[in-house]
Amino acid sequence: LYYAPGTCAQAVLIALHEAGAHFDANRLNMAESEQRSPAYLAINPKGRVPALVTPQGVLSETLALLLYVAQTYPQANLAPLNDPFRLAHMQEINSYLASTVHVNHAHRTRAGRWADDETAQQAMKAKVPQNMRDAFAIIEQHYLSDAPWVLGEQYSVADPYLFTVAGWLKSDGVDINEFPRVAAHHARVAARPAVQKALA
Amino acid sequence: LYYAPGTCAQAVLIALHEAGAHFDANRLNMAESEQRSPAYLAINPKGRVPALVTPQGVLSETLALLLYVAQTYPQANLAPLNDPFRLAHMQEINSYLASTVHVNHAHRTRAGRWADDETAQQAMKAKVPQNMRDAFAIIEQHYLSDAPWVLGEQYSVADPYLFTVAGWLKSDGVDINEFPRVAAHHARVAARPAVQKALA
Repeated sequence: LYYAPGTCAQAVLIALHEAGAHFDANRLNMAESEQRSPAYLAINPKGRVPALVTPQGVLSETLALLLYVAQTYPQANLAPLNDPFRLAHMQEINSYLASTVHVNHAHRTRAGRWADDETAQQAMKAKVPQNMRDAFAIIEQHYLSDAPWVLGEQYSVADPYLFTVAGWLKSDGVDINEFPRVAAHHARVAARPAVQKALA
Repeated sequence: LYYAPGTCAQAVLIALHEAGAHFDANRLNMAESEQRSPAYLAINPKGRVPALVTPQGVLSETLALLLYVAQTYPQANLAPLNDPFRLAHMQEINSYLASTVHVNHAHRTRAGRWADDETAQQAMKAKVPQNMRDAFAIIEQHYLSDAPWVLGEQYSVADPYLFTVAGWLKSDGVDINEFPRVAAHHARVAARPAVQKALA
């Protein structure tokens, strides 16, 4: 696994620990733009983390890697693999995290992706707290319940992904405690041995 | 299926036709913001298309619906369901379309999501052609080959999704013919009977 601490790749790192996988964790130095080095671009031409080198080839994109880990280690029971509706529901949540919530967050840290003008980048950054708040209101009301995990009683790869993205709220200017279910979920995931091992 | 023409929901509409599914297609009037009506928000609180009402509940997010259609109609062979690596590879491509390429495009049509300032929105729109070009260079070189479909010889739900997103290039100011494999793929998908039926 190629990853960097604090990025969405952390979700995959946790999932691999939850699965009991044997793997090498290769930490990229994002501060020195190692994800843009020729050596890494040969692995993932998109120049982003995560990337996973498997016996069959390289995979990227967090939600694809999460599904791959769940399917490759079925004994870990990290996804409802035999229930098409519940599996699609899990992918729905992971897709919302990837294509809406992560994107909202990235307008603070990577605003230059979408506008060259410095003033425009400041305008984007100014809207990040509101957009993160709106997205987490959907998660609080629509995707979480009083059950312990995103899918109810079954822990799945959606849990470390939500945990990772919710971990960005503070730096985005939002208090996680505005969302009691998100906050309780975050504490519950943080307490898991595999998560503590991954974060260490 | 709740959809609107020209949106990413078109990929799911095509997939349902490819699967030979019996379904009702409910077209929303986006010009009148029907996706924000109380009636639709009761179905999909995110106020976006697509949404699919299944016997077990409502699903949303294009890539989740595409996987659901492939799993629910396995005889249509719309995904490599029994090969974890290839299925994850398909999800990787669909995730790139959803979280990078669609997002790039949306900075022209929905810039107000990420900045309130009109000048900032203009700066975002100005960068859309470059960002779409960069993303399609990755698709051309990394995700397509000389084989007919995204996954090689097997047609899958990634094909109507790429077809739909590539259909936005012209309005984003990019000539699809800059990318010969993308252009050939687009013509190949357009010629399929299920696609012609869906677009009609």
